[in-house]
Amino acid sequence: MTLTSSINNSQRLQLAPLKIPTRLLLGPGPSNAHPAVLQAMNTPPVGHLDPAFLALMDEIQSLLRYVWQTENPLTIAVSGTGSAAMEGTIANVTEPGDVVLVGVSGYFGNRLVDMAGRYGADVRTITKPWGQVFSLTEVRTALETHRPAILALVHAETSTGARQPLSGVGDLCREFDCLLLLDTVTSLGGVPIFLDEWGVDLAYSCSQKGLGCPPGASPFTMSPRAVEKLQQRRNKVANWYLDMTLLSKYWGKERTYHHTAPINLYYALREALRLVAEEGVENSWQRHQKNVEYLWQELEDLGLSLHVQREFRLPTLTTVCIPEGVDGKAVSRQLLNEYNIEIGGGLGELAGKVWRVGLMGFNSRKENVDRLLEALRQVLPK
Amino acid sequence: MTLTSSINNSQRLQLAPLKIPTRLLLGPGPSNAHPAVLQAMNTPPVGHLDPAFLALMDEIQSLLRYVWQTENPLTIAVSGTGSAAMEGTIANVTEPGDVVLVGVSGYFGNRLVDMAGRYGADVRTITKPWGQVFSLTEVRTALETHRPAILALVHAETSTGARQPLSGVGDLCREFDCLLLLDTVTSLGGVPIFLDEWGVDLAYSCSQKGLGCPPGASPFTMSPRAVEKLQQRRNKVANWYLDMTLLSKYWGKERTYHHTAPINLYYALREALRLVAEEGVENSWQRHQKNVEYLWQELEDLGLSLHVQREFRLPTLTTVCIPEGVDGKAVSRQLLNEYNIEIGGGLGELAGKVWRVGLMGFNSRKENVDRLLEALRQVLPK
Repeated sequence: MTLTSSINNSQRLQLAPLKIPTRLLLGPGPSNAHPAVLQAMNTPPVGHLDPAFLALMDEIQSLLRYVWQTENPLTIAVSGTGSAAMEGTIANVTEPGDVVLVGVSGYFGNRLVDMAGRYGADVRTITKPWGQVFSLTEVRTALETHRPAILALVHAETSTGARQPLSGVGDLCREFDCLLLLDTVTSLGGVPIFLDEWGVDLAYSCSQKGLGCPPGASPFTMSPRAVEKLQQRRNKVANWYLDMTLLSKYWGKERTYHHTAPINLYYALREALRLVAEEGVENSWQRHQKNVEYLWQELEDLGLSLHVQREFRLPTLTTVCIPEGVDGKAVSRQLLNEYNIEIGGGLGELAGKVWRVGLMGFNSRKENVDRLLEALRQVLPK
Repeated sequence: MTLTSSINNSQRLQLAPLKIPTRLLLGPGPSNAHPAVLQAMNTPPVGHLDPAFLALMDEIQSLLRYVWQTENPLTIAVSGTGSAAMEGTIANVTEPGDVVLVGVSGYFGNRLVDMAGRYGADVRTITKPWGQVFSLTEVRTALETHRPAILALVHAETSTGARQPLSGVGDLCREFDCLLLLDTVTSLGGVPIFLDEWGVDLAYSCSQKGLGCPPGASPFTMSPRAVEKLQQRRNKVANWYLDMTLLSKYWGKERTYHHTAPINLYYALREALRLVAEEGVENSWQRHQKNVEYLWQELEDLGLSLHVQREFRLPTLTTVCIPEGVDGKAVSRQLLNEYNIEIGGGLGELAGKVWRVGLMGFNSRKENVDRLLEALRQVLPK
């Protein structure tokens, strides 16, 4: 082989092997992965149509149904992060002109608005201050006003730490003949979810929070009602990578080639789900609740107040008000640099006003609360 | 916490920890990852805005520029597989009504047609039998006829093993004022590429072939000319996850939150790129060429013939004609089950007619050729 051109070496960095600090990740995600999950991820990859891999895909589908408490046949992992799964729900059922009603009380409600607009939806919103939730009456009124094809709500608002109650919402959506789309990114595995009982038609999540897995392969599910809307589309889904008419044939019995799955992340996700099934999903929920109540108590004992009203607080993510006169960013930076603990800052309406503390998946353990509180006692001004 | 609903345990599989056979992956991809890459991937995740991670993102950008031989500032890894990066190139520069001209001589040309249509393009094609390539004269004639906004070609057709010559194509695209989009999925790291010298405006690749990394984080680059078209769009990019106006702010100095990157895959990609830089990309190309020539010789000595004319063969992927009377699928199955060696079958026009043998990245080594040939001698009918 003779090269006719000379090589430009200006970007040829000479690097040492990777050295990354070990952090305790108590922010809004990613959380630390379970060691057994990292170990599974390290298994050398096989082909994406290898019989051993196809069996693993089936296991992932079953276990996702279990943690979501759904019987939806179309339950898979999307080969991207939670944001890709989120876009997948919008992309598959939205046709240009569809009225999509979004409940916005945080960053991720706004993102749903942005995404739905890109797929040609006639987007309507109901809004609440960040950290609050919608009442059933408010939802009913909005459905009466807007008559949407899709109602999109955020079960667990990662930007605020609020949990949207779902009881009765699914019945309303059937009464008004619309699909119910639910963001469960910060709830799956850590917060009680009963998708079928709640009448949810589309849901998405991520791997790196309640499931204790690295990010990159993301749960996605569609009810038969939602699949019906997909099948009745006049045009192709306006997104090839997330098109469920294609993906369902790759995950289904046809096994039609679509893309090369991120094999090792699926190894990891399978192990993470296996561990949740071993623990029992209801026990995982209980564990998250117990540890977060301990966190709340300890934070309040330290004189800190919490942003969300108690009955609507998530067990996975807590927003802590930054006290008057305290430099929130300086505290986070000090926790990271001196204690190797990551916590998050506020977004949007809550920027500069709160810290976000996550206790999710493998990280929801008493010793992590103790370690954070010990550090906070050192770092916060007396 | 009291649950008001009972748990459905019907999908609660009780599984043993993961057991996956160790395969030698000599198909069209994924290839085996380098052991050092798997080890780097196993590093516990940090936050996606952690200073240590941001430094790693910069390193990935530089090294991607190096392996592609480009100075494009907008050179990143997309948080999905190669197919997502492929869709990213189309999505960002295609506006409804744009004429997109695609050279189709294999499966991935057809996929570009499908994707471009979903973004509203007025898609035109030039075609060749699978395994052949386009001459410069044919490209010129097509540009004269269709006057496209974008010409999309496949440098390395994974479905056929053919390498499209690029010399002179970039000049033609400037003459006809169109962008040049190039699929380098099966060439990056294994086949000489000089993106800037060739005048390529948009390119994408994957991690799991020539770079020897697991799949899931995928190289993407745009020239300043392509960025200009992006900036002049009348509407938002019709794909939130792959929108480079947002992603360039996450990878750029703003570090604006977009999505939670698949941290561990980026660890892996950084290590894979580091190893290519250590070897020298031109040495990697030479290695691929030398090992594939050995493969071709050995296959021909065995009486097998190759599908692609020698001067257009890829050093990364070889299509081998299945001899008359031989059951191609049975051979592949036997190689997998008895020898733990994966090779690929044909797609589309070549279904049932060829095997696809990859020697890519870490797998491009003489001992792998020997192992495959030893097995083939046993398995093929005498």
